Amino acid sequence: MIPGPLDPPARLLMGPGPISAYPSVLRAMSAPLVGQYDPFMTSAMAETQELYRGVWNTANEATVLIDGTSRAAIEAAIVSLVRPGDRVLVPVFGRFGHLLAEIAERALAEVHTIETDWGQVFPASVIEEAIVRVKPTLLALVQGDTSTTMNQPLEDIGDICRRHGVLFYSDATASLGGNAFDADAWGLDAATAGLQKCLGGPSGSAPITLSPRAVEVVTARRRIEAGIREAGDTSSADFVRSNYFDLAMILEYWGPRRLNHHTEATSMLYAARECARVLLSEGRDEVVARHALAGRAMLEGVRGLGLTVFGDVAHKMNNVVAVEIPDGVPGDAARAALLADFGIEIGTSFGPLHGRVWRIGTMGYNARKDAVLTTLVALEAVLRRFGARVPVGGGVEAAAGVYAGAA
Amino acid sequence: MIPGPLDPPARLLMGPGPISAYPSVLRAMSAPLVGQYDPFMTSAMAETQELYRGVWNTANEATVLIDGTSRAAIEAAIVSLVRPGDRVLVPVFGRFGHLLAEIAERALAEVHTIETDWGQVFPASVIEEAIVRVKPTLLALVQGDTSTTMNQPLEDIGDICRRHGVLFYSDATASLGGNAFDADAWGLDAATAGLQKCLGGPSGSAPITLSPRAVEVVTARRRIEAGIREAGDTSSADFVRSNYFDLAMILEYWGPRRLNHHTEATSMLYAARECARVLLSEGRDEVVARHALAGRAMLEGVRGLGLTVFGDVAHKMNNVVAVEIPDGVPGDAARAALLADFGIEIGTSFGPLHGRVWRIGTMGYNARKDAVLTTLVALEAVLRRFGARVPVGGGVEAAAGVYAGAA
Repeated sequence: MIPGPLDPPARLLMGPGPISAYPSVLRAMSAPLVGQYDPFMTSAMAETQELYRGVWNTANEATVLIDGTSRAAIEAAIVSLVRPGDRVLVPVFGRFGHLLAEIAERALAEVHTIETDWGQVFPASVIEEAIVRVKPTLLALVQGDTSTTMNQPLEDIGDICRRHGVLFYSDATASLGGNAFDADAWGLDAATAGLQKCLGGPSGSAPITLSPRAVEVVTARRRIEAGIREAGDTSSADFVRSNYFDLAMILEYWGPRRLNHHTEATSMLYAARECARVLLSEGRDEVVARHALAGRAMLEGVRGLGLTVFGDVAHKMNNVVAVEIPDGVPGDAARAALLADFGIEIGTSFGPLHGRVWRIGTMGYNARKDAVLTTLVALEAVLRRFGARVPVGGGVEAAAGVYAGAA
Repeated sequence: MIPGPLDPPARLLMGPGPISAYPSVLRAMSAPLVGQYDPFMTSAMAETQELYRGVWNTANEATVLIDGTSRAAIEAAIVSLVRPGDRVLVPVFGRFGHLLAEIAERALAEVHTIETDWGQVFPASVIEEAIVRVKPTLLALVQGDTSTTMNQPLEDIGDICRRHGVLFYSDATASLGGNAFDADAWGLDAATAGLQKCLGGPSGSAPITLSPRAVEVVTARRRIEAGIREAGDTSSADFVRSNYFDLAMILEYWGPRRLNHHTEATSMLYAARECARVLLSEGRDEVVARHALAGRAMLEGVRGLGLTVFGDVAHKMNNVVAVEIPDGVPGDAARAALLADFGIEIGTSFGPLHGRVWRIGTMGYNARKDAVLTTLVALEAVLRRFGARVPVGGGVEAAAGVYAGAA
């Protein structure tokens, strides 16, 4: 029995991501393919690089896409920058810190972690102390960790890394586009993201940017594969233990030499280009402000429903809030009812927070007033159905008040 | 200056891939997103697995997608099946054999290659002799190598591998869908592909299937990442040196436990599902026959233009033909004219064949009579423009004759 064509149900995705894509991003993916060395493709790739320089706020020439999910770009950054035995410092304030540590361990780095309670971020001084103690090659630091909703301040970290001769990498998957990110001003050497959060696209293409200092490191480990190697191509014995994630090769593929590596995922390139185009057309600061407004409205809205917000709200990402599941309400059943009866998805969390909080996102296309208010009325109905005592209209009133105050 | 929305030029992609996608595959990618644990997503993933069992001709439970290009799936197969120091045998008959060797070298395997001239394939006996000599853990063998157009016969190799206790992996990126592939009957332990050739989709999602024997190998190296590890989860010290490509984790993500790994590339999943659905709706054998017919028509067509075909035609893939560039014709300028004036793309090749042959594909959606004939008339016009003496209408006449004979 061969199934029919796809016909996905209507969904308003208000979880921690993936979220509903911008309609124009979905349309971009249905554009016809062109060959990978077509002049149009070359110019679409160059445009996409330039657009992402705008998104990252960087002049980095080495601003490209990795053909995979956000996790693919994390691995590309780490395996290309870190040699087996190199020390890597990972401050962990949620699940995705563990992920960076895990990926660095797989790369056979000597991984050192420092941890803080879930729901908190690190003061820069604590990170500096750890750098002094560990003397890492690389600091790998999540910006926004969706598992806890926290947004780690990065602005002072680059200077600290520079002073101690440490490469500074940040995973901005969950935060980029919805919160300020200044790759150059903050002294980032590498940063990676995905499309499926505030950028408003599908998972499957992962923006990455590398500073000239990071490019030097990856280029020094260059190895051109046999079969396309030419006279004069030398290879380092210290090569990256991955072909797919070897950033030196990936940069040569995107660079003027256009050296064959993978076959670019054309439709995902189209999507990535459109995500950045939509963002910059609205304006980088304007998009962050829209996320801040929607996030504040959702925050006050859930408080208006009498729910308790998890974590250090002063350091929350704009685009997601974690609320404690009220006593007596079955968290997963309530989420399932929200999905089945209202077509609205919100998220659970991981590890220590699993079953304890819901995570509600307001990101990308869905950082919109109607999406916020609709989610709040539906949540109110579901909470009441499961026996919670909630102020009638309390969520919408509070959220609408935030929008009214901003108008 | 922010560029406008994408508007790709009309292209008939008749190169060695990527090729023009099926229209319904492009449409599938513009379908709205759903959450990654949505019941619809779970069923779309399960349907996709079952559809690819049909495509691969296998009962393998472990039939999934890798979120990346075809090269990503190659790396996932090799790094998950091969430990550092393990011996890997790679028979090389074109560029993609070199790629398998390269990826295995990056994984720190002890790589042994045997080579044959470009344009030839290996007799099974030669592969068996090398197996006896090398005693590899894994045989990694390309099925169809687009760089030479050759289609390596695989049907006797599985038995040989089984007799000698060797795991048998094949890269079927360029061949799957357009040429017979019988994963179970031929004794494959692992096989990988991409969408952008005969499957008629965009690059960016890579089907993979693993035999129970291969699953045992990868599962023995299982390591669950910190952050989502639960009581009772044990980890092997012999873990895969990649998180993204750890097939044990990827299988748990696709399996009933749905253990969080990457965020599935939803739009690419939609595309992959539609590629397989289109293929099985037409019929697996019927699609291969359509490729065989279009390939024969193109072969006779280029011969009808007086061109010389490269390589051992008896072992050519159905879906691509390499023709020697006639003396005096500037290969790249002629290709550029075909693209600029007719919107038709054909390919050049790599390494020893670069500048010596063109490669013309007839695959997926473009394995069609009108695509074949249009390409031949345009090629005739371009050849004549560059001073080649070509029989008037010779290409179309020969190709139409093949179609008429088959009718």
